[in-house]
Amino acid sequence: MGVRLTPANRQPAHTGGPFTLQATSAETNVASVSSFLGLPVKVLTAFVKGHPFAAFIQSDLRGRGMDVEGPSVPQGGPWGYRHQINIADSGAGLRGPRVWNDRAGEVGRTLKVKDFDLERIFGDEGVEMMHLSGLIAALAPDFCLSLAETAMQYGTRISFDLNYRASFWEGREDELRDTFKAIASLSDILIGNEEDFQLCLGIAGPAAGGKDLAGKTDAFRAMIESIRAQYPQAKVVATTLREVLDAETHLWGAIVSGPDQTVVIPPRVISVLDRIGGGDGFVGGLLYGILKGWDTERCAQFGWASGALAVSLLTDYAYPADEEQIWSIWKGNARVQR
Amino acid sequence: MGVRLTPANRQPAHTGGPFTLQATSAETNVASVSSFLGLPVKVLTAFVKGHPFAAFIQSDLRGRGMDVEGPSVPQGGPWGYRHQINIADSGAGLRGPRVWNDRAGEVGRTLKVKDFDLERIFGDEGVEMMHLSGLIAALAPDFCLSLAETAMQYGTRISFDLNYRASFWEGREDELRDTFKAIASLSDILIGNEEDFQLCLGIAGPAAGGKDLAGKTDAFRAMIESIRAQYPQAKVVATTLREVLDAETHLWGAIVSGPDQTVVIPPRVISVLDRIGGGDGFVGGLLYGILKGWDTERCAQFGWASGALAVSLLTDYAYPADEEQIWSIWKGNARVQR
Amino acid sequence: MGVRLTPANRQPAHTGGPFTLQATSAETNVASVSSFLGLPVKVLTAFVKGHPFAAFIQSDLRGRGMDVEGPSVPQGGPWGYRHQINIADSGAGLRGPRVWNDRAGEVGRTLKVKDFDLERIFGDEGVEMMHLSGLIAALAPDFCLSLAETAMQYGTRISFDLNYRASFWEGREDELRDTFKAIASLSDILIGNEEDFQLCLGIAGPAAGGKDLAGKTDAFRAMIESIRAQYPQAKVVATTLREVLDAETHLWGAIVSGPDQTVVIPPRVISVLDRIGGGDGFVGGLLYGILKGWDTERCAQFGWASGALAVSLLTDYAYPADEEQIWSIWKGNARVQR
Amino acid sequence: MGVRLTPANRQPAHTGGPFTLQATSAETNVASVSSFLGLPVKVLTAFVKGHPFAAFIQSDLRGRGMDVEGPSVPQGGPWGYRHQINIADSGAGLRGPRVWNDRAGEVGRTLKVKDFDLERIFGDEGVEMMHLSGLIAALAPDFCLSLAETAMQYGTRISFDLNYRASFWEGREDELRDTFKAIASLSDILIGNEEDFQLCLGIAGPAAGGKDLAGKTDAFRAMIESIRAQYPQAKVVATTLREVLDAETHLWGAIVSGPDQTVVIPPRVISVLDRIGGGDGFVGGLLYGILKGWDTERCAQFGWASGALAVSLLTDYAYPADEEQIWSIWKGNARVQR
Amino acid sequence: MGVRLTPANRQPAHTGGPFTLQATSAETNVASVSSFLGLPVKVLTAFVKGHPFAAFIQSDLRGRGMDVEGPSVPQGGPWGYRHQINIADSGAGLRGPRVWNDRAGEVGRTLKVKDFDLERIFGDEGVEMMHLSGLIAALAPDFCLSLAETAMQYGTRISFDLNYRASFWEGREDELRDTFKAIASLSDILIGNEEDFQLCLGIAGPAAGGKDLAGKTDAFRAMIESIRAQYPQAKVVATTLREVLDAETHLWGAIVSGPDQTVVIPPRVISVLDRIGGGDGFVGGLLYGILKGWDTERCAQFGWASGALAVSLLTDYAYPADEEQIWSIWKGNARVQR
Amino acid sequence: MGVRLTPANRQPAHTGGPFTLQATSAETNVASVSSFLGLPVKVLTAFVKGHPFAAFIQSDLRGRGMDVEGPSVPQGGPWGYRHQINIADSGAGLRGPRVWNDRAGEVGRTLKVKDFDLERIFGDEGVEMMHLSGLIAALAPDFCLSLAETAMQYGTRISFDLNYRASFWEGREDELRDTFKAIASLSDILIGNEEDFQLCLGIAGPAAGGKDLAGKTDAFRAMIESIRAQYPQAKVVATTLREVLDAETHLWGAIVSGPDQTVVIPPRVISVLDRIGGGDGFVGGLLYGILKGWDTERCAQFGWASGALAVSLLTDYAYPADEEQIWSIWKGNARVQR
Repeated sequence: MGVRLTPANRQPAHTGGPFTLQATSAETNVASVSSFLGLPVKVLTAFVKGHPFAAFIQSDLRGRGMDVEGPSVPQGGPWGYRHQINIADSGAGLRGPRVWNDRAGEVGRTLKVKDFDLERIFGDEGVEMMHLSGLIAALAPDFCLSLAETAMQYGTRISFDLNYRASFWEGREDELRDTFKAIASLSDILIGNEEDFQLCLGIAGPAAGGKDLAGKTDAFRAMIESIRAQYPQAKVVATTLREVLDAETHLWGAIVSGPDQTVVIPPRVISVLDRIGGGDGFVGGLLYGILKGWDTERCAQFGWASGALAVSLLTDYAYPADEEQIWSIWKGNARVQR
Repeated sequence: MGVRLTPANRQPAHTGGPFTLQATSAETNVASVSSFLGLPVKVLTAFVKGHPFAAFIQSDLRGRGMDVEGPSVPQGGPWGYRHQINIADSGAGLRGPRVWNDRAGEVGRTLKVKDFDLERIFGDEGVEMMHLSGLIAALAPDFCLSLAETAMQYGTRISFDLNYRASFWEGREDELRDTFKAIASLSDILIGNEEDFQLCLGIAGPAAGGKDLAGKTDAFRAMIESIRAQYPQAKVVATTLREVLDAETHLWGAIVSGPDQTVVIPPRVISVLDRIGGGDGFVGGLLYGILKGWDTERCAQFGWASGALAVSLLTDYAYPADEEQIWSIWKGNARVQR
Repeated sequence: MGVRLTPANRQPAHTGGPFTLQATSAETNVASVSSFLGLPVKVLTAFVKGHPFAAFIQSDLRGRGMDVEGPSVPQGGPWGYRHQINIADSGAGLRGPRVWNDRAGEVGRTLKVKDFDLERIFGDEGVEMMHLSGLIAALAPDFCLSLAETAMQYGTRISFDLNYRASFWEGREDELRDTFKAIASLSDILIGNEEDFQLCLGIAGPAAGGKDLAGKTDAFRAMIESIRAQYPQAKVVATTLREVLDAETHLWGAIVSGPDQTVVIPPRVISVLDRIGGGDGFVGGLLYGILKGWDTERCAQFGWASGALAVSLLTDYAYPADEEQIWSIWKGNARVQR
Repeated sequence: MGVRLTPANRQPAHTGGPFTLQATSAETNVASVSSFLGLPVKVLTAFVKGHPFAAFIQSDLRGRGMDVEGPSVPQGGPWGYRHQINIADSGAGLRGPRVWNDRAGEVGRTLKVKDFDLERIFGDEGVEMMHLSGLIAALAPDFCLSLAETAMQYGTRISFDLNYRASFWEGREDELRDTFKAIASLSDILIGNEEDFQLCLGIAGPAAGGKDLAGKTDAFRAMIESIRAQYPQAKVVATTLREVLDAETHLWGAIVSGPDQTVVIPPRVISVLDRIGGGDGFVGGLLYGILKGWDTERCAQFGWASGALAVSLLTDYAYPADEEQIWSIWKGNARVQR
Repeated sequence: MGVRLTPANRQPAHTGGPFTLQATSAETNVASVSSFLGLPVKVLTAFVKGHPFAAFIQSDLRGRGMDVEGPSVPQGGPWGYRHQINIADSGAGLRGPRVWNDRAGEVGRTLKVKDFDLERIFGDEGVEMMHLSGLIAALAPDFCLSLAETAMQYGTRISFDLNYRASFWEGREDELRDTFKAIASLSDILIGNEEDFQLCLGIAGPAAGGKDLAGKTDAFRAMIESIRAQYPQAKVVATTLREVLDAETHLWGAIVSGPDQTVVIPPRVISVLDRIGGGDGFVGGLLYGILKGWDTERCAQFGWASGALAVSLLTDYAYPADEEQIWSIWKGNARVQR
Repeated sequence: MGVRLTPANRQPAHTGGPFTLQATSAETNVASVSSFLGLPVKVLTAFVKGHPFAAFIQSDLRGRGMDVEGPSVPQGGPWGYRHQINIADSGAGLRGPRVWNDRAGEVGRTLKVKDFDLERIFGDEGVEMMHLSGLIAALAPDFCLSLAETAMQYGTRISFDLNYRASFWEGREDELRDTFKAIASLSDILIGNEEDFQLCLGIAGPAAGGKDLAGKTDAFRAMIESIRAQYPQAKVVATTLREVLDAETHLWGAIVSGPDQTVVIPPRVISVLDRIGGGDGFVGGLLYGILKGWDTERCAQFGWASGALAVSLLTDYAYPADEEQIWSIWKGNARVQR
C-alpha cells in the first residue's frame, strides 16, 4: 500500500503548493464501500517499520472500518524499503490528471504468503470473498497466486480486477500473463475492459470495437462469450464504460454480466471532482451487492452509483454515509436532503 | 438564528476535515440583498448570553449592514440554550448536499413579543416591510403571528415565505396550519411552491401538476387563483422553479404574480457553487424590487438573478457588490469586467 | 461523545474563521495512549442515528485503534438528540483558552447499561481496566455506577478521574456526590486535584495548601492519607501540578502515589500548542504504564511525558508515534531525530 | 483607511504564499475596544467608489460595531485614488516584522471637513470623545486640525496619539510640527513616546533617557512636566514601554499620568502572535476606561491588558469577547475557562 | 509589472477572506509558454527598490525560467512608486470575474529606454522576437515605441498584442493611437480582436460583424485584408474567438492568418477554472510555434491549447509540464495519464 | 536533490493532514544566502526525466536565483529512479522534529563527473568557491571527490561541511572515511562538529568535551589544532554550538577559526519556527562573508545570524530580504521596521 499526494485546487503537481495525503491502494479503495456500509473487511499488506506513513495508513484503514494484517519490514537504511507514493493531480478542464508512480523500493514487493497465517484467516476467521487488483498481482505475482489458491481451497469467492498497467508489465509480459491467467481461472468475478482482457489474458476482442456505446456493448457481449468459454467458473464478468469529455465531466456507464442476466447501463454525463478511484468505486459497489446477494441488475446499479460517488469525493474511494446515498445517486437525485 | 458549518471543497460532513462557519437564517439571507444595496434592515432575534457564536452572529449581521435587536438569554448550564447549527455540505456531482438540523435547545424557541418594544420599532422607527420565513413560524408560531398582527396595525407590509419543512411539522400539523393560515391572511406577499401552499395552507394544487415547465406554470397559475380567492389581500404571489441536474448544475426559473401581471421566467441552466440560500436569494431580490417600487417584471428578474448570485457564493446569502452585478447576471453576462 | 470545534491559528471562536473538527471525550483522550501503543481498547458510548458527526466519531475512534460499541439513538426531529460540541480555542499569550459547552440534547445522557451486553464484554471478551471520567459520571451517573459495579464483579480494575466541573454539578451536588463516592469506593486508581477530591468526595485538603510546589506536594501527601483512609482499595492516587504562565507556556509536574512509593515530578517549563487534553494525556500515560506493569516511577514519568506530548499536538489526545517518542520527551530531548 | 496584507504562518512578504486581508487604521484599531464592549463609535473617513476593498472595509467596520461616514471618491481611472495597503508580516524569532507602506494615490489625503456635516455629528448626535492618530494627522493635516477645532467648540474631548513616522514627515517637518502642536494644544489626552513628543512637538526629553525601566520612567516623568507646562489642558499623558526580546516575546509596560496620579506598570514578559496594533490596543483600552469614568489606575491596567490582547490576535486590533477577558489578561490568568 | 491578488474558492474580492498572490503582466504571461518549454526569455521592466513584491516578482519570473533586467527605482516615501495590484476574482457561474486596476504610482510608467543597454541586449545577446502588449504600450508609450524601433534595427521580429483597455485610453486617445500605429507598422505579428483593431488602429471592421461564428470569421477575414493593406509587413494576424457561457464555461476558438494560410479553429466548449490569462496563453502558444518554425496550422492549434491550459490553472499564465500536455489538450484528451 | 514534505502547524507526519512541499538539499540550502544576496550560484545535480518534482525543483532553484545544470535520467519504470523525499515535521515543545529519509532509487546516486562539462564550468565560466555537503559525499563519493580534484586544479576554493549521518555510513565506514579524508585534504573551509570530525575524519576530540560552553569551546579549540595539523591547507574551520531547549527554543552559538583569529559566539536563546536548515543557514552566511572578503569576525556573525534567520522561516534555507535583515538579527533587533 502507499499514499497519494494530491495538489490542492485541481492544480498540477509540478507547480508545487499545498498537498493532501491519503492512503491508497486499489483493493482498499474497492473494499471501502463494504466496510463503510458495515461488512467486515480485512486487508493483507506489508508495512515499513517505523515509517510515519505506515502509521498513517494503518490508522486510515482502521478509520474506514477495516482490519489490517501484515508484517512490518525494517527499512534497512535511507535507501531501503518504502511505501509507494502516487503523485496525482485531479486535472481541470481539458488538462487531464497525471499520475506519477514513485515506487522504487516499494515494500509491497516483499509480500510473501508465509508472512501470514492463512489457515487462521481463511479457515478460522472465514473469508466470504477475496478481492485482488491487477496492480498488486503485477507487483507480487507469486503472493497473489498463492492467496488465490488458498482462497479456493477454503471456498472463498475470488474477485479479480485485471487493471492492466503498461508500465508495470514492460519486460515482464510472459511471467505476468501466466500468473494472471492462473488467478483468473480461479476467480468467480472478473472485471476489466477490453484491453485488460486482451493484454492480461490474451482474449481477443471482436474486430469492430467501435467508439460508440452500441459498438462497445456488442463487443463486450461477444468478449464475454470468449471469457466464459475460457473461464467457465466465472459467475460475473463486468466492465465500466467511461468516456472523458473533460477532467470535470465524464460519460459513465457499465456492463455487468451475471448469472441471471447481462445488465447494460448506458453512459450518463456525470460531474467529476477527482476521477481517481472511480473504477474502484464501481467494483466496490458491485462486490457489496454480490455479498448482499442482490440480483445482477441491482449490483450493476449500485456499482455504477458507487463509482459516481467516488468521483464526487477527493478521496480515491467512495465514502458513503449510508446505502441510501448511493441509491439516491443512482436515481439521479442530487436535491438537497434536509 | 444560528450558524452553518460547511466542509471545505464540497466534501461531505461525515468525513471530517476543515469547516467554515457562517451566520445563517432564512430571514437574514433574504434581507442581505436589501442591506447590501443600502436599504435599512433590522433583525429581531434572540441570543445566548456569552456564547461565542452569539458574538459572531451579531458582528456578522452588522457587517452585512443590518441592525440587530433582541434579548440575550442566559444559557442555564451546559445543557441549556443554544444557537442552532446547520451542518450542511455543498454536495458535488450527483451527490446532493445534506443538511443536518442540530437544533436541540434552540434559543429561538424562546422568542416572545414582550421581549421587544414593538411600539418603538413599528411606530417610532417605522417599518416598511416585515419578512417572515416558515422556519421561524414553525419554531415560534405565537411570536410570529403576534408580530404579523402588530405589523398589520402599523401599516407595515408583510412578506411570508412558507418554507414547509416536514421534520418541523411532524406531529404539530394542526397547530401550525392554523398559525400559518392566520399569518398568510395578513400578508401582502406570499412565496412558496405547490407543496408549501398545499401543506401549509391546504390549498390544493391542480390535478395534473406535471414535471415539465409548461405543466408547472399552468398549475401554478391555477393555484394562484385559489390563493387569491382565499387570501385576497395578497398583492404578490411567487414561486421558484428549480430542477436539480446535479449538485453543480440547476435549471432555475421563477413565476411572480404581481398586481400588474404574472411574469414567468423559464428555467435556464446555471452553475452552482453552493445551493443553500438560492431560494432566499430569490426572495431577497424580489423584495428589494418591491421596496424600490419596480414593476413585477423587474422584480421577478432581479429576484431570479439574486438567487443565481447566491448560489455562486459560499455564503447562504447573495452578497452583491452593487445592483449592476445582479443585472449583469440577469443578462447572462459573465464576461470579465475590468 | 462529541466533537470539538477549534478555530485555526490560536484565534478565538467569537471572531469566526476556519475551524477544525475532532472527536473528543475525556475517556477516549485517555485511552488513545494505550490504543496507539498497541493495547486493545473498547469505547462504550451512544450515537445519534444518521448524524454526520456520529459517523465521523466512529471512524475517528477506529482510526485511533479503538473498538466502539453502543446504541444508535434516533434523533427524534430537529430539536432531538445531539452530539455535544466543545467550542474551544487554544488561547495565545496571556489570553487563556475558552471552552463553551454546547450540550443541549446530548445523546450521552441516554446511556443505560441495558443497552450493552455487559456479560459478553466483561465476561467473554474480558476487560483488564475500565476508565471513567467525572464528566460522564456527571452526565450519566447511574450508567457509570452500574458499569463500575459490573466491572468490580468481573475483577476489572477501575480507574476514576474525578474531573469536577462546577457547571455540571450546579444544583445536583447531593446526587452527584453520592454517585461519585460510590464509584470511588470501587476504584483502584483515583485521579484528581485537591479541589476535585474536596468537591466530589468531600475530602478536606490540608489548611495551608499554598501556591508553591513544596506546599502543594505536602498538601497532597496529607490528602493522600485521608483518601487512603476512606478509600483503602485504591492502589494509585495521582494528580498533576500545572501552573499556567501563559497559554503557550506552562509549568508541568505530577504526583503519583502508588503501591511502592510516592513519586513527585517537580514542575518543569513546557511549551504548549494546545492545552486541552494535557491532563487526559497524563492519565493516559499513567494507565498505560500500569497496564504494562511498570513501577510507580516509570508510570509517573510516562504519564507526565504523555501529557506534554498531548499539549504539543492540536488534538485533545496524545498521539505517540511510538513509546520512544514519549520517553524522549521525558528526557527533555527535543533534538531532531533523523 | 486601508487594508493590511499579512502572509500566513509568520512568513515574510517577499516570499509570496497565501495572505489574509484585514481593514486597518490606527483610529479604528483604537476604537475597536470601545465598540466591541458596547460604546457607540463613528468613523469619519473617505472611500474609493466601487473599490472592492471599500466595500470590505465598510462591512468590516460595521461588523466591529462602528458606524462609518464619509464621501465615496471616484477612482478617476486605473492610476487614480486608492486605499492604502500595509504589506506587513508578523516576524518570527529574531526576524522582526517588516511593514511596507504602499500609499500612492491614498484616498485619505483627499479628506476635507466640508465633506462632513460636522454640525449634525458633533452637535445633534453628540460626540463624547474624538480620537486622532498622528498618521492621519500627517496624511491630512488640515482636515485633522479643523476636526479638532470643531470638537473643541462642541465640548468633545480630544485624544491625540502622536504616532511619529519618519517617512511620513520627511521634507514636511515644519508644516507638520505646526499642525501637531495646534492639535496637541486642544487635546485632553496625549499619547506618545519620548521620540514622538520630541519630534512632533519639540519637547526635549531629559538627557539621560537610559534603556532601563527606572531610567525610562524617570525620564518620562520629567517629560510629563514639560508637556503639562506647554499643554496645560491635557488631563492624561500616556506612553507604553515596550522592549522587543524577539518577534514573539516582548516586555510590555506603560506609564499613564492622569488627573489623580501617575501610574507606572513595570514591563512584564508577554508572548506575541502579531505585534502590529499592540500600541493601538493600549490606547483603545485606556480611552475605554476614561469613557467609563474609571480612575487612572484602572485605565492604565485596562489599556495595558488591551494591548496584550491585541498582540495575541492576528488582527491589528483587540477583539475582546467581554470586559472580563481583558481583566483576566491583566491578572495574568491564562488558565482555560470552561 | 505587478501582482494579482485572487480570493480563494472563486469568491469575490469585496467579501474579504484569504487571497493568493501571483506576479503578473501580459508579457510575462505570454512568455511563460516559451520559457517553460525551454526557450530563453528576458523580461525588461522596472522595480521599486526594497519592495517585498519586487523581490517576489523577480524570484517568480526566474522560477518560470526568465531572465529579468531593469532599474530599481527608489520608492520615494510612503506615497511614492508602487507595483500595481490587480484585485481579480475568478467569478463563478453567472457571476463574472471582476478586475480592479489599482495602479496609482505604478513604477512601470517610469520605464525609459536609457535605463537599458539595448545595444548589448539586442546586439550582443541577440533577440529573436520581442513581444509587446497594448497594456504596457498604453502605460509607457515612448518606451515601447523606442524598443520597437530598436528591435527593428537589429532584425528582431516584433509581436504586438493590441489589448485595448478603455480605462487606460480615456482622454489619451490621440496620443495612444499614434503610438500604437507606429508600433504596429513595425510588427511582424499583430494580435487583437475587431474592437482592438478598430479602436487602437482605426481599422474599421465590416458592417455585419454578427455574433455567430460564421459572421465573426467572415468579418475577421475581411478585416485581415484591411490590416494587410495598411500593415503589409505583418506576417501573422491573429485573434481569439471567445464566448462566455458562464464563468466556468466558455466557447473558445481562434483565427490565425499566417504566411501560408488562414486557419480557423471553430469555438469548442471548455471548462474554465480561472479565465484571466487565457488570451495571453493563446499568444504564448502561438509565438512559441512561430519561434519553433511551425506552420500556421500547428501554431494556431498550439496557441488555442495553450490558452485552454491557462484557464485550467489558477495562474494567469499557462504552465505546461511539457509540449505533450498542450498537444493532449488540443486533441481533447483529458484522460488520466499514468 | 529532493523535496521535503512538511506537515502544517507543527503537527507530526504520522497523523496525516495537509503538507507543504519544498525543494531541499544541504548545498542549495547553503547557497541560498549567496544567491538571494546577488552572488552567482550554479547547482550541479541530476533529475528524473519527466518527474513533476524535477520540474518543481528546477523552478524553485531558479526562483532562488541559482542556475541548475545536470543530466535528466529516465525513470526506467514505476520502480525506477526517484527524487528523495524528506518527510520532516517541525516538532513542537518537547516533541522533537522527526525526519524520515525516503531515498530508495535516489537519482543523485547516479551522479558522475562525465555528465558535466567541467572544463567549461570551472575553466570558462569560472567558479570562485565550490561547496560540498557530507550528505552528497556519502551518496555519490566518487563524484564528489572528482569534483573536488577538478576544483583544485582550477584554483576554486573548496568548502566541505562534513554532515555525518550514521544511517548513511552504516556498513560503508571504510570507503566513506577514505573519500572524506581525501576531500577534506583539498578543502579551504572545513565545517563540522566534534562528532563529524571524529567519525568522518578520525580526528579524536579532547577527552573532556563537556556539555557546557566553556568546555565545548576549549575542546573545539584543541580539536582545531589537530585539524590544522592534519589539514594544513584549511584556512577556515568552523562549527555551530546548538543546545535544544525545546523544539521552539534553542541556544545558538558558533566558533569560527579563520586566518586572522578564532571567533567564539557564545550561545544565545533563539526562537525556532522550524529548525531544519539552521546549520545550513550558518554555513551559507559564513561562505557569503568569505566570498565578500570579510574578516573572520564578520563572517562568523553573519553565519550565526543567517542560521537564526533560517530557523525563523518554514523553508530549509535562509531567505534574506537583504543584508540588512541579517545584520539586524545579529544585533538582536526584532523591532518592527516600517
